[in-house]
Amino acid sequence: MDPKASLTAPNAIRAMIRAGDYSGPTNGFVPGFAQCDILILPEANAFEFQTYCQHNADCCPLLATSIAPGSYHLDQLGQNIDIRTDVPRYRILKHGQLTEEVSDITHLWRDDFVIFALASYLAFDTVLNSFGIPSPLANPTHSLPMYISHLESNPVGPFGGNKVVCMRPMQKQELIKAIQAGSVSRVPHGIPVHFGEPGEIGIKNLGKPNFGEPIAFAAPKLPVFWTTSLTAHLAITRAAPELCIINSPQHLLVTDKADLSLVID
Amino acid sequence: MDPKASLTAPNAIRAMIRAGDYSGPTNGFVPGFAQCDILILPEANAFEFQTYCQHNADCCPLLATSIAPGSYHLDQLGQNIDIRTDVPRYRILKHGQLTEEVSDITHLWRDDFVIFALASYLAFDTVLNSFGIPSPLANPTHSLPMYISHLESNPVGPFGGNKVVCMRPMQKQELIKAIQAGSVSRVPHGIPVHFGEPGEIGIKNLGKPNFGEPIAFAAPKLPVFWTTSLTAHLAITRAAPELCIINSPQHLLVTDKADLSLVID
Repeated sequence: MDPKASLTAPNAIRAMIRAGDYSGPTNGFVPGFAQCDILILPEANAFEFQTYCQHNADCCPLLATSIAPGSYHLDQLGQNIDIRTDVPRYRILKHGQLTEEVSDITHLWRDDFVIFALASYLAFDTVLNSFGIPSPLANPTHSLPMYISHLESNPVGPFGGNKVVCMRPMQKQELIKAIQAGSVSRVPHGIPVHFGEPGEIGIKNLGKPNFGEPIAFAAPKLPVFWTTSLTAHLAITRAAPELCIINSPQHLLVTDKADLSLVID
Repeated sequence: MDPKASLTAPNAIRAMIRAGDYSGPTNGFVPGFAQCDILILPEANAFEFQTYCQHNADCCPLLATSIAPGSYHLDQLGQNIDIRTDVPRYRILKHGQLTEEVSDITHLWRDDFVIFALASYLAFDTVLNSFGIPSPLANPTHSLPMYISHLESNPVGPFGGNKVVCMRPMQKQELIKAIQAGSVSRVPHGIPVHFGEPGEIGIKNLGKPNFGEPIAFAAPKLPVFWTTSLTAHLAITRAAPELCIINSPQHLLVTDKADLSLVID
């Protein structure tokens, strides 16, 4: 990459990833700009999956889709995005089974592929920060712990399954302020689905997240849980379409959209 | 009163009270219209008390003051309000001591009296109801239980003291929705100050409220606490000015303002 390019700009990050100079996780990159989980499906499965996202807007906030099957651009989310190269790492799933993890899918691209971009939970970190609630992570390039809860998403066709939630420990007053922040900002993933006893939503051990690293905390902090877009990854794996491509967890598309510009209906 | 007058209109309620036909509590009257706690002070104390309200806007949301000392109207809150007669019951406090409870203060009116009208917690009941969270009261003419907490208001001059809170039992999901309702409506008293263990804010026994009647409930409901404008009553009693007049608890001024039109900054 051009060493003069600023890594504080989303397009510079995408250029670095496109050039093959970086294939790691994107947490903590260009704070304030939205990152997306990406799901790519053949057109045959696209309508049902889109309907699934619409019926599960709390977990699967759909920010953008490609303009037509075969298009690999997402102009709504950023200049010159090429989804075949701009995600640091992709997972290829055949009939729901992971067959390969790659950093470029140009050779696999098909004329019937449709792209779905879902807002990650990271935008709400920006909101919380702007409301004076800091991230519980000592290192911003790490990920929050995420857990497969027993809360069910709304099934649509073959798509369904459990909600994947992330956890931030908070004091009661922070929780009250966080719900205010989610309500007034209307950023995706802003309203918690649960707080307090993890067992009430089917989480047995906070020390063993399904994704990300555990966070140690103690009373008076409570665990508070918000949905994540990994719910969509789980739904796609479970539906086991002939072929789909998703980003590897925590390896997201960095967009040009400001976190605070994301508003859910 | 005119028997043809509709008791669904605030001005009909005020006319009935003004005529001396009713001197009871106003809870549950004309739902959807704001009710106010009223405090009347000599001009000598007015500026400091107004400053106290401004520094404690969460507990003491000041909706209106009289236009000048001696005026007994509150045109901002309703047509033809005469504060000397339109509150069902008044308490006369001399040096902080209750000396008399009356239903008309015309004979006591002074040219230096200033009126303060604070939004009661009832507006938020309307908001909760519109968000699908019903009142915990079986009878809408009853009052929520209220407690003198150990949370301190911000002192200004002689005014200060503990926050008086009301309690509604709620399930966790209702609490999350209630904070959303408070955030997006921005109605006074909409954001809770505490939930869970009452002892954490100095309340020893939920069964023995300082005002109103207790509410029985059980897990999974939690007690949730919001401020009330009785905080201002307590502050005035504690400051013990030469003379002040307040409404008797639960005997409020019924205004022409829609609950949902009340917005805090």
